[in-house]
Amino acid sequence: MCVSSVFANRTSVSSCLRRPLTPHSVAVMGDNDESEIIEHHDDEEMEKMRTPRNHSQSFLESVASSKDGYSSTQSSHRLLAYSDALISIIATVMILPVAHTKFQDNEELKQSLQALLTTKIAVYLMTFLIVTVAWAAHIRLFQVIERIDDTLALLNLACMMLITFLPYTFSLMATFPNNTLGILLFCACVMVIGLIQALIVLYGFSHPFLLNDQIQMSENQAYYKRRILEIIMRVPIMCLFASVFSVILIQVSYIVLAIVIFLPYISQCLKWIGNKAIGGQVEDSPDSVPFYTYHPSEPLSKERVEAFSDGVYAIVATLLILDICEDNVPDPSVVKKEFDNSLVAALQENGPEYLAYFGSFATVGLLWFVHHSLFLHVTKATRLMGLFNTFSLAFVGGLPLAYQLTHEFPRGSHNELEAVQISCVIIFFAGLFQLAMWVTALFTERETLHPYVRYGGREHAFMLAKLSLYPCVALGTFVFTCVLSRFSTSIFHMMEIGVPFAFLVLRLLVRVALVLLRWLFCPARNDLDRVPVEEGDSHLPINEIVT
Amino acid sequence: MCVSSVFANRTSVSSCLRRPLTPHSVAVMGDNDESEIIEHHDDEEMEKMRTPRNHSQSFLESVASSKDGYSSTQSSHRLLAYSDALISIIATVMILPVAHTKFQDNEELKQSLQALLTTKIAVYLMTFLIVTVAWAAHIRLFQVIERIDDTLALLNLACMMLITFLPYTFSLMATFPNNTLGILLFCACVMVIGLIQALIVLYGFSHPFLLNDQIQMSENQAYYKRRILEIIMRVPIMCLFASVFSVILIQVSYIVLAIVIFLPYISQCLKWIGNKAIGGQVEDSPDSVPFYTYHPSEPLSKERVEAFSDGVYAIVATLLILDICEDNVPDPSVVKKEFDNSLVAALQENGPEYLAYFGSFATVGLLWFVHHSLFLHVTKATRLMGLFNTFSLAFVGGLPLAYQLTHEFPRGSHNELEAVQISCVIIFFAGLFQLAMWVTALFTERETLHPYVRYGGREHAFMLAKLSLYPCVALGTFVFTCVLSRFSTSIFHMMEIGVPFAFLVLRLLVRVALVLLRWLFCPARNDLDRVPVEEGDSHLPINEIVT
Repeated sequence: MCVSSVFANRTSVSSCLRRPLTPHSVAVMGDNDESEIIEHHDDEEMEKMRTPRNHSQSFLESVASSKDGYSSTQSSHRLLAYSDALISIIATVMILPVAHTKFQDNEELKQSLQALLTTKIAVYLMTFLIVTVAWAAHIRLFQVIERIDDTLALLNLACMMLITFLPYTFSLMATFPNNTLGILLFCACVMVIGLIQALIVLYGFSHPFLLNDQIQMSENQAYYKRRILEIIMRVPIMCLFASVFSVILIQVSYIVLAIVIFLPYISQCLKWIGNKAIGGQVEDSPDSVPFYTYHPSEPLSKERVEAFSDGVYAIVATLLILDICEDNVPDPSVVKKEFDNSLVAALQENGPEYLAYFGSFATVGLLWFVHHSLFLHVTKATRLMGLFNTFSLAFVGGLPLAYQLTHEFPRGSHNELEAVQISCVIIFFAGLFQLAMWVTALFTERETLHPYVRYGGREHAFMLAKLSLYPCVALGTFVFTCVLSRFSTSIFHMMEIGVPFAFLVLRLLVRVALVLLRWLFCPARNDLDRVPVEEGDSHLPINEIVT
Repeated sequence: MCVSSVFANRTSVSSCLRRPLTPHSVAVMGDNDESEIIEHHDDEEMEKMRTPRNHSQSFLESVASSKDGYSSTQSSHRLLAYSDALISIIATVMILPVAHTKFQDNEELKQSLQALLTTKIAVYLMTFLIVTVAWAAHIRLFQVIERIDDTLALLNLACMMLITFLPYTFSLMATFPNNTLGILLFCACVMVIGLIQALIVLYGFSHPFLLNDQIQMSENQAYYKRRILEIIMRVPIMCLFASVFSVILIQVSYIVLAIVIFLPYISQCLKWIGNKAIGGQVEDSPDSVPFYTYHPSEPLSKERVEAFSDGVYAIVATLLILDICEDNVPDPSVVKKEFDNSLVAALQENGPEYLAYFGSFATVGLLWFVHHSLFLHVTKATRLMGLFNTFSLAFVGGLPLAYQLTHEFPRGSHNELEAVQISCVIIFFAGLFQLAMWVTALFTERETLHPYVRYGGREHAFMLAKLSLYPCVALGTFVFTCVLSRFSTSIFHMMEIGVPFAFLVLRLLVRVALVLLRWLFCPARNDLDRVPVEEGDSHLPINEIVT
């Protein structure tokens, strides 16, 4: 029936797909409220897992149909997407004070860059890190609470409000390191966020149908609740200490705050190194909480990593056009006075900015494209991949600064050359950390990658080529600008314009290269096609593909 | 098996869900490339519809496995989400030049507001409209092209680059209405966007596996292709006329551009009124294209409406904090000189801005919350609902202006009173158009709403209360500010702080109100519970619920 209605229009197809649900929901009337409110683009996973439960729960519901809560249970999909959008914008936004730093015309970039590096860029990077730590905590929380109702949605909005205020309090703290107020405000923000999260957990455990199914079915709910609350409350309690110390001895409170942010990473690093050194792998007890482990291979919601990355790429791509829209529409009176009523002449002044806009949009767009291609092949994201993703995004967030710099200085000056080189460095590292994600995924390829991109396939080589294109081009441009310092900007613009076309013909190039290499190493070819090369030394994948 | 593994950890559950696919993809090796690359949070719909096709296509693929294209087919889900994020940011961003207008202290707001209204606000609203028209065209295009490959992704990025540049060219055109350059740039942008879209359609029809399944299975592919190309090329051709006329007679080219934007709406309005007047409903021929009809009930991708709205709400919620982060971190030297090294005193200067930030975030967050609740109940979005959604979002986009105004003027001045009133008006209309969406959905509730929110249910009354809370509160605040002009700002702040709590207890309030009303009209109660009231006079739903 469903197959034949493919010929009918879209509406009837979707109603055909809904049809199997209808008799079920008619038969079990109380079930309606909860099962149908789940949005259609929800995880299939959740949908399937909930079906067996619904039958038993519907009795409960029909008995206690007047009880509040059940009727308003919702999928958390859109709430999380909105939160991701907010957090990604806030993480990226602290580049604005850096990018909008005004340079004096007679000032050398080298000197002003040092001033920038010491304070503003460090503040930007730290803010990015702190916001992503808050984001990771948010992911952990909503891996435990899988469904929401109105109260949770409102609590989450309150949490978001404070997270978006965090960068401001942090930059206050960084600007006035010796003033207690900055650190107090920052700690207050973090503490309230922690308390709201604890409240969400308490609320979730008092309404168990909102919880993750695994916890919901477990008999150790009280244990889970205590354990999760302990982990969540660690941060606000340490912030309380920090704020107490800020009155007594301000240095101690900074150390406490640093511990809050870095401790999970450091302890996991040490544990990992220890395990590698001893050789033995300590297994977790089967009873432990599957979330809140801070283990590098802890699963991370792939959907949310994508949503967060999309937000960062989108806001970075539009930051320059925001500036252009606000500043570069010339005033009619100025055009009349200074440019003899010639709009063309007035706009020519801003020529470099338009070029920088198109260049920045193309670069950000293509880095997004590479990220998109990468995540198409990924089946499961891990904490470590998330970390590399954060680093890559932090560099992507630096691009508006790079492009502001490239059009800030007069043509052919020493400063412009350096600005171009900084842009190359930023693009290089943004691309390199994307490559690092891929390498991390390859280490556990059986769990994290689709079968057809594992070692040895044609898609594998193509993906590798996509990922290495930007680092290679950025490195090449950097070297060229050092050698041919006279033509540096033209080389940079050529790179900007050329790369999209390189992506278009990349598939062709990879195929030609593979054919050439196979032709050279002809006898090895048949082995390659049948036996996929085992994982191991993942740092030489090119060799492994062709030999 | 799947049920029992609910007890196991998350990874094994998801692999259990993937298992049904595995034998299939092992059996049909060539199929791997296409079927598994589809992301997991993709529409179930698409997944199910494609299954029967895969068997027949896999033969083709295994025969022509060396042919380019098949192996790189991808779900368009994430590409569209990214496009939605970009377009929503760009649509909202033109409020910045309006919000950042500097007011002279001695200037009356009334006068400066008139100056604002005549140019900047009109430019903002027109830009918003134009960008949403481009967005609607993008939706139509990707309802025809349902799967993408690398070439299409790159073409789409090029299209996005030009769409994000559109607001700038439009504001140039609006600032210099008598200059040919602005109109030429705008027309050039629109024409290139149209050409890229035509290219995408041509590419899609030359690789039919990328197309919508309905068109793919149809025998009239050539007809569809011609028809869609005709509709798409209409806009660039009219822009070509407009740019030719701009050299001869500039007024004519403006008329042509206005026709481009409004013609579909006007013609549909006239057709609808005509149909209502005559009474007869002209049926579309069964052979016509299901998309590109411009009919008010034409289906609109619900997912994309949500993604676009989320983008607008997210950027509006963060616009104020962007300003605060950039401007309100005081300079250490200034604090030392002017405030006697007291950071508290320096920050007190910005007090109203922080309050405005929290107020704006709460309002935007709650308007998002209402929108979210509304779309949880909607099963299918239509073109007309999309139009009301656009209007609502345009007013939401005006909120940063309102909040800039409320803290711009000295306390208790006549200007501040007016700023508060403007804020109320903006909130009122943003809420009213959300209510209009709900009413539109009720008109065709069998198609567009979940069964449990149709007339007569408890959820229906609750949804209505949620939707009418903000318009009522805004109207009440407006009236109070007129009557008690002395306390206007305190009333406004009370509203900002009180509304979130109102939402928390709303469910309780609605229940109490319903119980009271039912108690008053006791005999009618039993009829209500069984027979759902038919649609018709949807303007009095409260009465229909309780009587």
